[in-house]
Amino acid sequence: MKRILLNCDMGESFGVWKMGDDAHAMPLIDQANLACGFHASDPLTMQRTVELAVEHGVSIGAHPAYPDLLGFGRRHMALSPDEVTAVVLYQLGALDAFCRAADTRVAYVKPHGALYNELVCNDALFAAVLEACASYRQGLPLMTLALTDNSRELRLADEADVPLLFEAFADRAYLADGQLAPRRLSDAVHREPQRILEQGLAIARGEPFADIDGKPLQLRADSLCVHGDNAESLAVLRRLRAMLDAT
Amino acid sequence: MKRILLNCDMGESFGVWKMGDDAHAMPLIDQANLACGFHASDPLTMQRTVELAVEHGVSIGAHPAYPDLLGFGRRHMALSPDEVTAVVLYQLGALDAFCRAADTRVAYVKPHGALYNELVCNDALFAAVLEACASYRQGLPLMTLALTDNSRELRLADEADVPLLFEAFADRAYLADGQLAPRRLSDAVHREPQRILEQGLAIARGEPFADIDGKPLQLRADSLCVHGDNAESLAVLRRLRAMLDAT
Amino acid sequence: MKRILLNCDMGESFGVWKMGDDAHAMPLIDQANLACGFHASDPLTMQRTVELAVEHGVSIGAHPAYPDLLGFGRRHMALSPDEVTAVVLYQLGALDAFCRAADTRVAYVKPHGALYNELVCNDALFAAVLEACASYRQGLPLMTLALTDNSRELRLADEADVPLLFEAFADRAYLADGQLAPRRLSDAVHREPQRILEQGLAIARGEPFADIDGKPLQLRADSLCVHGDNAESLAVLRRLRAMLDAT
Amino acid sequence: MKRILLNCDMGESFGVWKMGDDAHAMPLIDQANLACGFHASDPLTMQRTVELAVEHGVSIGAHPAYPDLLGFGRRHMALSPDEVTAVVLYQLGALDAFCRAADTRVAYVKPHGALYNELVCNDALFAAVLEACASYRQGLPLMTLALTDNSRELRLADEADVPLLFEAFADRAYLADGQLAPRRLSDAVHREPQRILEQGLAIARGEPFADIDGKPLQLRADSLCVHGDNAESLAVLRRLRAMLDAT
Repeated sequence: MKRILLNCDMGESFGVWKMGDDAHAMPLIDQANLACGFHASDPLTMQRTVELAVEHGVSIGAHPAYPDLLGFGRRHMALSPDEVTAVVLYQLGALDAFCRAADTRVAYVKPHGALYNELVCNDALFAAVLEACASYRQGLPLMTLALTDNSRELRLADEADVPLLFEAFADRAYLADGQLAPRRLSDAVHREPQRILEQGLAIARGEPFADIDGKPLQLRADSLCVHGDNAESLAVLRRLRAMLDAT
Repeated sequence: MKRILLNCDMGESFGVWKMGDDAHAMPLIDQANLACGFHASDPLTMQRTVELAVEHGVSIGAHPAYPDLLGFGRRHMALSPDEVTAVVLYQLGALDAFCRAADTRVAYVKPHGALYNELVCNDALFAAVLEACASYRQGLPLMTLALTDNSRELRLADEADVPLLFEAFADRAYLADGQLAPRRLSDAVHREPQRILEQGLAIARGEPFADIDGKPLQLRADSLCVHGDNAESLAVLRRLRAMLDAT
Repeated sequence: MKRILLNCDMGESFGVWKMGDDAHAMPLIDQANLACGFHASDPLTMQRTVELAVEHGVSIGAHPAYPDLLGFGRRHMALSPDEVTAVVLYQLGALDAFCRAADTRVAYVKPHGALYNELVCNDALFAAVLEACASYRQGLPLMTLALTDNSRELRLADEADVPLLFEAFADRAYLADGQLAPRRLSDAVHREPQRILEQGLAIARGEPFADIDGKPLQLRADSLCVHGDNAESLAVLRRLRAMLDAT
Repeated sequence: MKRILLNCDMGESFGVWKMGDDAHAMPLIDQANLACGFHASDPLTMQRTVELAVEHGVSIGAHPAYPDLLGFGRRHMALSPDEVTAVVLYQLGALDAFCRAADTRVAYVKPHGALYNELVCNDALFAAVLEACASYRQGLPLMTLALTDNSRELRLADEADVPLLFEAFADRAYLADGQLAPRRLSDAVHREPQRILEQGLAIARGEPFADIDGKPLQLRADSLCVHGDNAESLAVLRRLRAMLDAT
């Protein structure tokens, strides 16, 4: 069985404003999704976070977003597909410059926030992001949400000749089809460490776990999205890392 | 004798606001200095201007600037050398993403506006820009101002292992040492087409021309910076192009 | 009969990028809707446009928008009602500072672009803008679209104790209910000056004119939205001004 | 003797990024210098911080800055005096909109960061800020640095008919003329609470205290600038507040 990876959003500080605890989380993960200056981060923060990732042998993903710093890329913006391709290419190249300077390169692309969510239901935007990946570098993968049925994503990615990486969440409740339960639902986010670890391990092993209605749900994922921005989430992350390493 | 090239600042529109006449100027030049979104341009404009340059076989240079859209990068900002390296790398990579998507790559870097002017007198900033070039790609050249004595620039560039391209101006008056006459002087910019053409041809041939005090000045330049944003400057550019082609 | 006024979007330049022909249009209008720096304009441009309006005795309206300079405020952004109230207050106050410095004050508020369009169908956003008006100054009017039935708008405005100004368009085709025909329809914008003038005069007189299907439509409007950003639109504006003055 | 006031920079969060501990510091101070969106803050943060200040009966000052969010307004930018007047007016009006909505008004203006520092040595910029104050509202005071000799500032302010408020610092070392010791000097900032309290009390009483060379320095100040963004600075602030209240 292919070992599941751990990915984490990082490099989300901006100027004097700090966010996250990248120094402590970086040694625990496999893939770092780095903000590219549109929803968070700035050139110096990008440079230093790339260097931190390289130091720990962590794979670097571009984490492009809508151009909305104030809204942290979480507010939907009505960009055209052409605009989406262009803003993803821009952010991807900007991050890759720091990778080149550190003798590495962007390993994958994972859209952020409202753009990420929009891809689930908007074929034109999904194709626009795929086009950015394909035209930037042959074989550059796009990371997207693992669903019970990813045939739509696989078909679109196949047309664009872009490999997909599927990610799942240990700390989010799921709907029956593998969509994330909307955050407005009271049970959308798991808080108890034990629950998060169990769901994470189940996904890692390809075993079923309970969706938001308690029904069994099975997902095939390449990577688990984790958080490490405070003491509590870091503690869970450390245990998850240890359990996966012990598998 | 190596033939002199013509370079022009381009891709300076921003969103709905148009600037320049890139469609008419592009066929007449050899090198396009493309704004990278910090003082002008935006992802879609960059993408389209890169495509226009490729269509006309024009070499693409990154034209990075201070992060000051409202001031068009013309206002000095007190960035540290580290910040300068990072903002240049960011802009360079962003532009290069569109070059990759168009099967080409950034051919050189020419800083813009206040950052360009600052390099003349600030060794730390000059070294910071050189570091961005060197760390982005081995052999990526920096374009800078041709002076009667460029030993300072050559020494710094040599330390960083970065090739230099020297540019001169057909339409600007010069001080005795090859510095541009400050724009606040009344005679700082040549208006008469004949004067511009004569100075441009003299530089192209490596022959002396009159500085602002009428004394002979001789510069060795790889490229002439030209303008093509209105009917008048386009007319001069067409004649200059024809004269250089006839040489 | 109350005389209809002419309003025009103005102050839409940004830094070095010029837009519109405010100097020629200002003498022809009654109300200037001034951009406030979020979709266009900047502090100096706002100051100078306020001074131009005052010089010509033109009433000044705030023209607030979503924070999207690159998209000129035309792209929908998912702001919460609280965010909308806050961004409108911010822009309103910023513009009013220049009005105070010129011994006048903002006379009304007219949202711009995607925010303006959103108000037609989103009660919470409409209420959010009304709250900004009401909390800024007792009696400050909101300008909104004249429909065949404005009872919804009047009810919401009444609840917020905000007076409304209704505007209509001489150069836009209308649906049967007084909504503007979407711009994606081929006949959405009138191009022939005669058609524009006739529709403008009909609206000014409270008489019926043809909607997009040729059916008669009657609107009660306080103000006609006009354009004056090029020679053609200025010519139509001059004739409209003359015809209204002659009535 | 007029009682000295305590002022504190506040409202410095931006979107999802939090800074400071306004909720705990606000009850302890008399004057809150609120960021206006150019170096920190955003419309919602401004609205909420104004409401917090009003709740605690704290006077609200506008804290305008250069347009440099990434640099937190600390990097010098070469704005012309006209630009400075316009950016100060813009920020002042924007903040005042939230004050109006909370039935109060901006009580004074205190420039931030690099702009504040620049005023000490640049008469044209100082006059530009004074013009913004004077043209916004008759009698609106400008807060500036108390020096041993403020005759320059008083002369310029008198010409502009703007009242001045003088502030001093309890936690900064001073040069002999009352200028702040540059931060690059190792002793520029006092760390020991006792030292801060002693200097604060001396300034409050108009008594001499030791400058950076140990020589006695006496300043006349209307307000002491304090910090309350962490547990340590809050503890000092609480003691200073108590000591001043007991005087």
